[in-house]
Amino acid sequence: MPNPTAAMLVIGDEILSGRTRDANMYHLAGVLTEAGIDLREVRVVSDDRGAIIAAVQALAAAFDNVFTSGGIGPTHDDITADCIAAAFNKKIDVRDDARAILEKHYATTGTELNAARLRMARIPDDAVLIENPVSSAPGFTLENVHVMAGVPSVFKAMVESLLPTLSGGAPLVSETLRIDRGEGDIAGPLGALAAEYPMLSMGSYPFQKKNGKYGSNVVIRGTDGALVHKVIEQLSTSFPK
Amino acid sequence: MPNPTAAMLVIGDEILSGRTRDANMYHLAGVLTEAGIDLREVRVVSDDRGAIIAAVQALAAAFDNVFTSGGIGPTHDDITADCIAAAFNKKIDVRDDARAILEKHYATTGTELNAARLRMARIPDDAVLIENPVSSAPGFTLENVHVMAGVPSVFKAMVESLLPTLSGGAPLVSETLRIDRGEGDIAGPLGALAAEYPMLSMGSYPFQKKNGKYGSNVVIRGTDGALVHKVIEQLSTSFPK
Repeated sequence: MPNPTAAMLVIGDEILSGRTRDANMYHLAGVLTEAGIDLREVRVVSDDRGAIIAAVQALAAAFDNVFTSGGIGPTHDDITADCIAAAFNKKIDVRDDARAILEKHYATTGTELNAARLRMARIPDDAVLIENPVSSAPGFTLENVHVMAGVPSVFKAMVESLLPTLSGGAPLVSETLRIDRGEGDIAGPLGALAAEYPMLSMGSYPFQKKNGKYGSNVVIRGTDGALVHKVIEQLSTSFPK
Repeated sequence: MPNPTAAMLVIGDEILSGRTRDANMYHLAGVLTEAGIDLREVRVVSDDRGAIIAAVQALAAAFDNVFTSGGIGPTHDDITADCIAAAFNKKIDVRDDARAILEKHYATTGTELNAARLRMARIPDDAVLIENPVSSAPGFTLENVHVMAGVPSVFKAMVESLLPTLSGGAPLVSETLRIDRGEGDIAGPLGALAAEYPMLSMGSYPFQKKNGKYGSNVVIRGTDGALVHKVIEQLSTSFPK
Protein backbone atom coordinates (compact mmCIF):
# COMPACT_ATOMS: atom_id res chain seq x y z
CA MET A 1 0.00 0.00 0.00
CA PRO A 2 1.42 3.41 -0.87
CA ASN A 3 2.14 5.79 2.00
CA PRO A 4 -0.45 8.44 2.90
CA THR A 5 0.21 11.82 1.27
CA ALA A 6 0.35 15.29 2.75
CA ALA A 7 0.64 18.95 1.88
CA MET A 8 1.49 21.93 4.05
CA LEU A 9 0.07 25.43 3.89
CA VAL A 10 2.14 28.16 5.53
CA ILE A 11 0.09 31.30 6.14
CA GLY A 12 1.76 34.62 6.78
CA ASP A 13 3.00 37.85 5.27
CA GLU A 14 6.14 37.65 7.40
CA ILE A 15 7.51 34.75 5.34
CA LEU A 16 6.70 36.31 1.97
CA SER A 17 8.20 39.69 2.92
CA GLY A 18 11.46 38.03 3.93
CA ARG A 19 11.19 39.20 7.52
CA THR A 20 11.08 35.68 8.94
CA ARG A 21 12.82 32.56 7.70
CA ASP A 22 10.39 29.66 7.81
CA ALA A 23 11.22 26.96 10.34
CA ASN A 24 7.97 25.00 10.46
CA MET A 25 8.21 23.58 6.95
CA TYR A 26 11.65 22.17 7.65
CA HIS A 27 10.47 20.69 10.95
CA LEU A 28 7.28 19.15 9.55
CA ALA A 29 9.10 17.70 6.52
CA GLY A 30 11.48 15.78 8.77
CA VAL A 31 8.78 14.54 11.14
CA LEU A 32 6.48 13.35 8.34
CA THR A 33 9.30 11.50 6.57
CA GLU A 34 10.00 9.60 9.81
CA ALA A 35 6.30 8.81 10.18
CA GLY A 36 5.99 7.44 6.64
CA ILE A 37 3.71 10.23 5.42
CA ASP A 38 4.81 11.63 2.03
CA LEU A 39 4.93 15.43 2.02
CA ARG A 40 4.23 16.20 -1.64
CA GLU A 41 3.69 19.94 -1.75
CA VAL A 42 4.05 23.09 0.34
CA ARG A 43 2.38 26.41 -0.37
CA VAL A 44 3.06 29.72 1.33
CA VAL A 45 0.32 32.35 1.03
CA SER A 46 -0.22 35.76 2.60
CA ASP A 47 -2.83 36.75 5.19
CA ASP A 48 -5.42 37.03 2.43
CA ARG A 49 -8.84 35.43 2.77
CA GLY A 50 -9.29 34.48 -0.87
CA ALA A 51 -5.78 33.05 -1.19
CA ILE A 52 -6.09 30.97 1.99
CA ILE A 53 -9.50 29.51 1.10
CA ALA A 54 -8.46 28.61 -2.46
CA ALA A 55 -5.23 26.95 -1.30
CA VAL A 56 -6.95 24.93 1.46
CA GLN A 57 -9.62 23.66 -0.91
CA ALA A 58 -7.09 22.69 -3.60
CA LEU A 59 -4.74 20.91 -1.20
CA ALA A 60 -7.47 19.18 0.85
CA ALA A 61 -8.91 17.72 -2.37
CA ALA A 62 -5.53 16.51 -3.66
CA PHE A 63 -3.84 15.02 -0.56
CA ASP A 64 -4.72 12.77 2.39
CA ASN A 65 -3.62 15.33 5.00
CA VAL A 66 -3.12 19.09 4.99
CA PHE A 67 -1.14 20.80 7.75
CA THR A 68 -1.43 24.57 8.15
CA SER A 69 0.78 26.88 10.19
CA GLY A 70 0.08 30.47 11.17
CA GLY A 71 -2.74 32.93 11.61
CA ILE A 72 -4.56 31.56 14.67
CA GLY A 73 -3.56 34.19 17.25
CA PRO A 74 -5.63 37.04 18.75
CA THR A 75 -4.84 39.91 16.34
CA HIS A 76 -6.76 41.31 13.35
CA ASP A 77 -4.45 39.53 10.86
CA ASP A 78 -5.25 36.12 12.36
CA ILE A 79 -7.92 34.93 9.96
CA THR A 80 -7.00 31.29 9.41
CA ALA A 81 -9.75 29.66 11.51
CA ASP A 82 -12.48 31.68 9.79
CA CYS A 83 -11.00 30.83 6.35
CA ILE A 84 -10.88 27.09 7.10
CA ALA A 85 -14.52 27.19 8.22
CA ALA A 86 -15.45 29.01 5.00
CA ALA A 87 -13.45 26.54 2.88
CA PHE A 88 -15.59 23.67 4.24
CA ASN A 89 -18.82 25.65 4.51
CA LYS A 90 -18.96 25.29 8.31
CA LYS A 91 -20.18 27.75 10.95
CA ILE A 92 -17.60 29.18 13.30
CA ASP A 93 -17.97 30.85 16.70
CA VAL A 94 -16.42 30.84 20.18
CA ARG A 95 -16.75 27.21 21.26
CA ASP A 96 -17.29 26.19 24.89
CA ASP A 97 -14.54 23.54 25.00
CA ALA A 98 -11.93 25.93 23.64
CA ARG A 99 -13.17 28.76 25.85
CA ALA A 100 -12.84 26.55 28.94
CA ILE A 101 -9.21 25.79 28.05
CA LEU A 102 -8.42 29.51 27.70
CA GLU A 103 -10.29 30.43 30.92
CA LYS A 104 -8.31 27.89 32.87
CA HIS A 105 -5.00 29.00 31.36
CA TYR A 106 -5.50 32.73 31.87
CA ALA A 107 -6.84 32.21 35.40
CA THR A 108 -3.57 30.45 36.23
CA THR A 109 -1.41 33.17 34.69
CA GLY A 110 -3.54 36.02 36.05
CA THR A 111 -4.15 37.46 32.59
CA GLU A 112 -7.46 38.93 31.45
CA LEU A 113 -9.36 36.81 28.91
CA ASN A 114 -10.37 39.85 26.84
CA ALA A 115 -12.25 39.95 23.52
CA ALA A 116 -9.02 39.63 21.50
CA ARG A 117 -7.83 36.53 23.38
CA LEU A 118 -11.32 35.04 23.17
CA ARG A 119 -10.96 35.04 19.36
CA MET A 120 -8.57 32.12 19.87
CA ALA A 121 -11.57 30.05 21.01
CA ARG A 122 -13.27 30.51 17.61
CA ILE A 123 -13.43 26.93 16.32
CA PRO A 124 -15.46 25.66 13.35
CA ASP A 125 -18.38 23.26 13.97
CA ASP A 126 -17.32 19.58 13.83
CA ALA A 127 -13.63 20.37 14.31
CA VAL A 128 -11.59 18.33 16.81
CA LEU A 129 -9.23 20.32 19.04
CA ILE A 130 -5.44 19.86 18.89
CA GLU A 131 -3.77 20.23 22.27
CA ASN A 132 -1.29 23.08 22.78
CA PRO A 133 0.89 22.28 25.81
CA VAL A 134 2.96 25.46 25.33
CA SER A 135 0.48 28.33 25.42
CA SER A 136 -2.87 26.49 25.69
CA ALA A 137 -4.84 28.11 22.81
CA PRO A 138 -5.73 24.99 20.79
CA GLY A 139 -5.36 24.14 17.13
CA PHE A 140 -7.97 21.98 15.42
CA THR A 141 -8.58 19.35 12.79
CA LEU A 142 -11.47 19.87 10.38
CA GLU A 143 -12.00 17.11 7.80
CA ASN A 144 -8.43 16.32 6.63
CA VAL A 145 -6.97 19.74 7.53
CA HIS A 146 -4.89 20.21 10.68
CA VAL A 147 -4.70 23.84 11.76
CA MET A 148 -1.73 24.84 13.91
CA ALA A 149 0.05 27.93 15.20
CA GLY A 150 2.91 29.70 13.43
CA VAL A 151 5.16 30.27 16.45
CA PRO A 152 7.71 27.47 15.98
CA SER A 153 7.70 26.18 19.58
CA VAL A 154 3.90 25.99 19.56
CA PHE A 155 3.80 24.48 16.07
CA LYS A 156 6.20 21.73 17.14
CA ALA A 157 4.20 20.94 20.27
CA MET A 158 0.94 20.77 18.31
CA VAL A 159 2.50 18.43 15.73
CA GLU A 160 3.59 16.18 18.60
CA SER A 161 0.03 16.16 20.00
CA LEU A 162 -1.45 15.42 16.58
CA LEU A 163 0.93 12.91 15.04
CA PRO A 164 -0.02 9.81 17.08
CA THR A 165 -3.62 10.20 15.84
CA LEU A 166 -2.65 9.98 12.15
CA SER A 167 -2.14 6.87 10.04
CA GLY A 168 1.44 6.60 8.88
CA GLY A 169 3.10 4.35 6.38
CA ALA A 170 6.48 2.73 6.00
CA PRO A 171 9.11 5.23 7.08
CA LEU A 172 11.58 6.30 4.39
CA VAL A 173 15.14 5.17 4.98
CA SER A 174 17.85 7.30 3.43
CA GLU A 175 21.60 6.93 3.06
CA THR A 176 24.01 9.53 1.76
CA LEU A 177 27.25 8.89 -0.11
CA ARG A 178 29.74 11.69 -0.48
CA ILE A 179 31.58 11.46 -3.79
CA ASP A 180 34.50 13.74 -4.53
CA ARG A 181 33.47 14.30 -8.12
CA GLY A 182 31.25 16.87 -9.78
CA GLU A 183 27.66 15.95 -10.64
CA GLY A 184 28.62 15.86 -14.32
CA ASP A 185 30.97 12.94 -13.66
CA ILE A 186 28.48 10.82 -11.73
CA ALA A 187 25.31 11.64 -13.67
CA GLY A 188 25.69 8.75 -16.14
CA PRO A 189 26.14 5.88 -13.65
CA LEU A 190 23.60 7.43 -11.26
CA GLY A 191 20.98 7.70 -13.99
CA ALA A 192 21.54 4.04 -14.90
CA LEU A 193 21.07 3.01 -11.23
CA ALA A 194 17.91 5.12 -10.97
CA ALA A 195 16.50 3.34 -14.03
CA GLU A 196 17.47 -0.07 -12.60
CA TYR A 197 15.81 0.61 -9.21
CA PRO A 198 12.62 2.59 -9.88
CA MET A 199 11.37 1.86 -6.34
CA LEU A 200 14.20 3.99 -4.89
CA SER A 201 14.47 7.75 -5.11
CA MET A 202 17.96 9.04 -5.91
CA GLY A 203 19.01 12.63 -5.61
CA SER A 204 22.32 14.31 -6.13
CA TYR A 205 23.31 17.54 -4.38
CA PRO A 206 26.47 19.36 -5.43
CA PHE A 207 28.77 21.17 -3.02
CA GLN A 208 31.89 23.21 -3.57
CA LYS A 209 35.10 22.20 -1.81
CA LYS A 210 37.63 24.58 -0.33
CA ASN A 211 39.85 24.13 -3.40
CA GLY A 212 36.98 25.37 -5.59
CA LYS A 213 36.26 21.92 -7.07
CA TYR A 214 32.82 20.36 -6.88
CA GLY A 215 31.75 17.23 -5.05
CA SER A 216 28.33 15.56 -4.83
CA ASN A 217 26.24 14.13 -2.05
CA VAL A 218 24.12 11.33 -3.43
CA VAL A 219 21.05 10.53 -1.36
CA ILE A 220 19.15 7.31 -1.93
CA ARG A 221 15.77 6.88 -0.26
CA GLY A 222 13.31 4.05 -0.05
CA THR A 223 11.24 1.98 2.33
CA ASP A 224 13.50 -1.10 1.92
CA GLY A 225 16.55 -0.28 4.03
CA ALA A 226 18.56 -3.30 2.91
CA LEU A 227 18.10 -2.40 -0.74
CA VAL A 228 19.04 1.23 -0.08
CA HIS A 229 22.23 0.03 1.57
CA LYS A 230 23.06 -2.42 -1.23
CA VAL A 231 22.73 0.26 -3.91
CA ILE A 232 24.80 2.76 -1.91
CA GLU A 233 27.57 0.11 -1.68
CA GLN A 234 27.31 -0.52 -5.41
CA LEU A 235 27.66 3.20 -6.13
CA SER A 236 30.53 3.47 -3.68
CA THR A 237 32.38 0.72 -5.59
CA SER A 238 31.90 2.61 -8.87
CA PHE A 239 33.51 5.73 -7.37
CA PRO A 240 36.36 4.62 -5.10
CA LYS A 241 37.94 7.33 -2.98
CA MET B 1 0.08 51.94 -9.84
CA PRO B 2 0.22 48.76 -7.80
CA ASN B 3 3.54 46.94 -7.53
CA PRO B 4 4.26 44.02 -9.86
CA THR B 5 3.47 40.62 -8.34
CA ALA B 6 5.54 37.47 -8.11
CA ALA B 7 5.43 33.83 -7.10
CA MET B 8 8.23 31.39 -6.46
CA LEU B 9 8.35 27.69 -7.30
CA VAL B 10 10.91 25.64 -5.37
CA ILE B 11 11.57 22.29 -7.06
CA GLY B 12 13.17 19.47 -5.17
CA ASP B 13 12.60 16.31 -3.15
CA GLU B 14 15.35 17.36 -0.73
CA ILE B 15 13.19 20.16 0.72
CA LEU B 16 10.05 18.02 1.04
CA SER B 17 11.92 15.14 2.69
CA GLY B 18 13.36 17.49 5.32
CA ARG B 19 16.94 16.76 4.25
CA THR B 20 17.63 20.37 3.30
CA ARG B 21 16.32 23.55 4.85
CA ASP B 22 15.31 25.97 2.13
CA ALA B 23 17.45 29.09 1.87
CA ASN B 24 16.44 30.44 -1.54
CA MET B 25 12.89 31.38 -0.58
CA TYR B 26 14.13 33.47 2.33
CA HIS B 27 16.74 35.17 0.12
CA LEU B 28 14.37 35.90 -2.76
CA ALA B 29 11.65 37.21 -0.44
CA GLY B 30 14.02 39.83 0.98
CA VAL B 31 15.42 40.88 -2.38
CA LEU B 32 11.98 41.23 -4.01
CA THR B 33 10.64 43.29 -1.11
CA GLU B 34 13.53 45.71 -1.56
CA ALA B 35 12.87 45.88 -5.30
CA GLY B 36 9.18 46.67 -4.86
CA ILE B 37 7.97 43.36 -6.31
CA ASP B 38 5.25 41.73 -4.18
CA LEU B 39 5.94 38.05 -3.52
CA ARG B 40 2.42 36.67 -3.12
CA GLU B 41 2.86 32.90 -3.10
CA VAL B 42 5.50 30.20 -2.87
CA ARG B 43 5.03 26.57 -3.82
CA VAL B 44 7.39 23.70 -3.18
CA VAL B 45 6.92 20.60 -5.35
CA SER B 46 8.92 17.40 -5.80
CA ASP B 47 10.93 16.34 -8.85
CA ASP B 48 7.74 15.21 -10.54
CA ARG B 49 6.98 16.21 -14.12
CA GLY B 50 3.21 16.56 -13.72
CA ALA B 51 3.49 18.54 -10.48
CA ILE B 52 6.08 20.94 -11.91
CA ILE B 53 4.16 21.63 -15.13
CA ALA B 54 0.85 22.19 -13.30
CA ALA B 55 2.43 24.56 -10.77
CA VAL B 56 4.29 26.58 -13.42
CA GLN B 57 1.17 27.02 -15.51
CA ALA B 58 -0.98 28.05 -12.53
CA LEU B 59 1.56 30.55 -11.16
CA ALA B 60 2.55 32.01 -14.55
CA ALA B 61 -1.12 32.73 -15.27
CA ALA B 62 -1.77 34.34 -11.88
CA PHE B 63 1.32 36.53 -11.28
CA ASP B 64 3.54 38.96 -13.21
CA ASN B 65 6.74 37.03 -12.48
CA VAL B 66 7.51 33.45 -11.49
CA PHE B 67 10.93 32.52 -10.10
CA THR B 68 11.92 28.86 -9.96
CA SER B 69 14.82 27.29 -8.08
CA GLY B 70 16.25 23.82 -8.50
CA GLY B 71 16.41 20.97 -10.98
CA ILE B 72 18.67 22.38 -13.71
CA GLY B 73 21.85 20.37 -13.09
CA PRO B 74 23.27 17.43 -15.07
CA THR B 75 21.68 14.45 -13.28
CA HIS B 76 18.63 12.34 -14.11
CA ASP B 77 16.48 14.12 -11.51
CA ASP B 78 17.12 17.53 -13.13
CA ILE B 79 13.97 17.86 -15.21
CA THR B 80 13.01 21.50 -14.68
CA ALA B 81 14.07 22.88 -18.09
CA ASP B 82 12.13 20.19 -19.96
CA CYS B 83 9.06 20.81 -17.76
CA ILE B 84 9.13 24.57 -18.37
CA ALA B 85 9.35 23.98 -22.12
CA ALA B 86 6.38 21.60 -21.91
CA ALA B 87 4.39 24.07 -19.77
CA PHE B 88 4.66 26.66 -22.58
CA ASN B 89 4.52 24.18 -25.45
CA LYS B 90 8.05 25.05 -26.65
CA LYS B 91 10.71 22.79 -28.16
CA ILE B 92 13.83 22.19 -26.13
CA ASP B 93 17.28 20.97 -27.15
CA VAL B 94 20.96 21.74 -26.57
CA ARG B 95 21.27 25.36 -27.70
CA ASP B 96 24.43 26.76 -29.30
CA ASP B 97 24.71 29.84 -27.09
CA ALA B 98 24.46 27.80 -23.88
CA ARG B 99 26.78 25.12 -25.27
CA ALA B 100 29.41 27.77 -26.07
CA ILE B 101 29.29 29.03 -22.48
CA LEU B 102 29.82 25.51 -21.12
CA GLU B 103 32.62 24.71 -23.64
CA LYS B 104 34.50 27.82 -22.61
CA HIS B 105 34.03 27.12 -18.89
CA TYR B 106 35.07 23.47 -18.99
CA ALA B 107 38.04 24.22 -21.29
CA THR B 108 39.28 26.64 -18.62
CA THR B 109 38.83 24.17 -15.79
CA GLY B 110 40.14 21.18 -17.82
CA THR B 111 36.94 19.19 -17.26
CA GLU B 112 35.32 17.03 -19.91
CA LEU B 113 32.06 18.39 -21.34
CA ASN B 114 30.38 14.97 -21.35
CA ALA B 115 26.80 14.08 -22.24
CA ALA B 116 25.57 14.68 -18.67
CA ARG B 117 27.09 18.17 -18.45
CA LEU B 118 25.79 18.99 -21.93
CA ARG B 119 22.24 18.52 -20.57
CA MET B 120 22.76 21.86 -18.83
CA ALA B 121 22.78 23.49 -22.29
CA ARG B 122 19.22 22.27 -22.95
CA ILE B 123 17.31 25.54 -23.25
CA PRO B 124 13.76 26.01 -24.59
CA ASP B 125 13.22 27.91 -27.85
CA ASP B 126 12.68 31.66 -27.33
CA ALA B 127 14.15 31.62 -23.80
CA VAL B 128 16.67 34.32 -22.81
CA LEU B 129 19.70 33.10 -20.86
CA ILE B 130 20.37 34.22 -17.27
CA GLU B 131 24.07 34.61 -16.51
CA ASN B 132 25.68 32.37 -13.90
CA PRO B 133 28.93 33.95 -12.72
CA VAL B 134 29.53 31.16 -10.17
CA SER B 135 29.55 27.92 -12.18
CA SER B 136 28.68 29.16 -15.71
CA ALA B 137 25.75 26.83 -16.60
CA PRO B 138 23.06 29.42 -17.34
CA GLY B 139 19.50 29.83 -16.14
CA PHE B 140 16.86 31.20 -18.48
CA THR B 141 13.73 33.30 -18.73
CA LEU B 142 10.83 31.93 -20.79
CA GLU B 143 7.75 34.17 -20.98
CA ASN B 144 7.33 35.43 -17.39
CA VAL B 145 9.14 32.48 -15.76
CA HIS B 146 12.74 32.84 -14.55
CA VAL B 147 14.46 29.48 -14.13
CA MET B 148 17.40 29.34 -11.73
CA ALA B 149 19.60 26.83 -9.95
CA GLY B 150 18.92 25.39 -6.50
CA VAL B 151 22.45 25.63 -5.07
CA PRO B 152 22.11 28.76 -2.89
CA SER B 153 25.31 30.51 -4.03
CA VAL B 154 24.34 30.00 -7.68
CA PHE B 155 20.72 30.98 -7.07
CA LYS B 156 21.83 34.24 -5.44
CA ALA B 157 24.20 35.08 -8.29
CA MET B 158 21.51 34.39 -10.92
CA VAL B 159 18.99 36.58 -9.05
CA GLU B 160 21.60 39.37 -9.09
CA SER B 161 22.08 38.93 -12.84
CA LEU B 162 18.34 38.93 -13.46
CA LEU B 163 16.98 41.58 -11.14
CA PRO B 164 18.15 44.72 -13.00
CA THR B 165 16.18 43.53 -16.06
CA LEU B 166 12.85 43.40 -14.20
CA SER B 167 10.39 46.24 -13.59
CA GLY B 168 10.10 46.98 -9.91
CA GLY B 169 7.71 49.13 -7.96
CA ALA B 170 7.86 51.28 -4.87
CA PRO B 171 9.97 49.43 -2.28
CA LEU B 172 8.18 48.49 0.91
CA VAL B 173 9.39 50.29 4.01
CA SER B 174 8.93 48.50 7.29
CA GLU B 175 9.41 49.46 10.93
CA THR B 176 9.22 47.16 13.92
CA LEU B 177 8.09 48.11 17.42
CA ARG B 178 8.84 45.77 20.28
CA ILE B 179 6.07 45.87 22.86
CA ASP B 180 6.45 44.06 26.18
CA ARG B 181 2.87 42.84 26.22
CA GLY B 182 1.24 39.71 24.87
CA GLU B 183 -0.62 39.87 21.57
CA GLY B 184 -3.92 39.62 23.43
CA ASP B 185 -3.23 42.99 25.10
CA ILE B 186 -2.36 44.88 21.94
CA ALA B 187 -4.82 43.25 19.53
CA GLY B 188 -7.61 45.79 20.16
CA PRO B 189 -5.63 49.02 19.54
CA LEU B 190 -3.67 47.38 16.70
CA GLY B 191 -6.87 46.29 14.95
CA ALA B 192 -8.25 49.83 15.22
CA LEU B 193 -5.05 51.25 13.67
CA ALA B 194 -5.19 48.67 10.86
CA ALA B 195 -8.75 49.73 10.09
CA GLU B 196 -7.76 53.44 10.17
CA TYR B 197 -4.80 52.93 7.78
CA PRO B 198 -5.85 50.35 5.19
CA MET B 199 -2.89 51.32 2.96
CA LEU B 200 -0.47 49.93 5.57
CA SER B 201 0.06 46.29 6.39
CA MET B 202 0.34 45.54 10.11
CA GLY B 203 1.52 42.27 11.52
CA SER B 204 2.13 41.14 15.05
CA TYR B 205 4.60 38.39 15.98
CA PRO B 206 4.68 37.04 19.51
CA PHE B 207 7.84 36.02 21.31
CA GLN B 208 8.43 34.50 24.72
CA LYS B 209 10.70 36.28 27.17
CA LYS B 210 13.13 34.61 29.53
CA ASN B 211 10.66 35.02 32.38
CA GLY B 212 8.10 33.03 30.37
CA LYS B 213 5.90 36.06 29.63
CA TYR B 214 4.97 36.99 26.08
CA GLY B 215 5.91 40.10 24.14
CA SER B 216 5.01 41.15 20.62
CA ASN B 217 6.92 42.55 17.69
CA VAL B 218 4.60 44.73 15.66
CA VAL B 219 5.71 45.25 12.06
CA ILE B 220 4.14 47.99 9.97
CA ARG B 221 4.84 48.02 6.23
CA GLY B 222 3.95 50.38 3.43
CA THR B 223 5.38 52.35 0.54
CA ASP B 224 4.99 55.70 2.39
CA GLY B 225 7.89 55.71 4.84
CA ALA B 226 6.75 58.88 6.66
CA LEU B 227 3.32 57.42 7.31
CA VAL B 228 4.80 54.13 8.53
CA HIS B 229 6.94 56.09 10.97
CA LYS B 230 4.03 58.24 12.17
CA VAL B 231 1.87 55.21 12.94
CA ILE B 232 4.71 53.42 14.72
CA GLU B 233 5.12 56.53 16.93
CA GLN B 234 1.39 56.59 17.60
CA LEU B 235 1.45 52.93 18.63
CA SER B 236 4.51 53.50 20.78
CA THR B 237 2.66 56.25 22.67
CA SER B 238 -0.27 53.88 23.35
CA PHE B 239 2.10 51.31 24.89
CA PRO B 240 4.75 53.22 26.87
CA LYS B 241 7.66 51.13 28.18
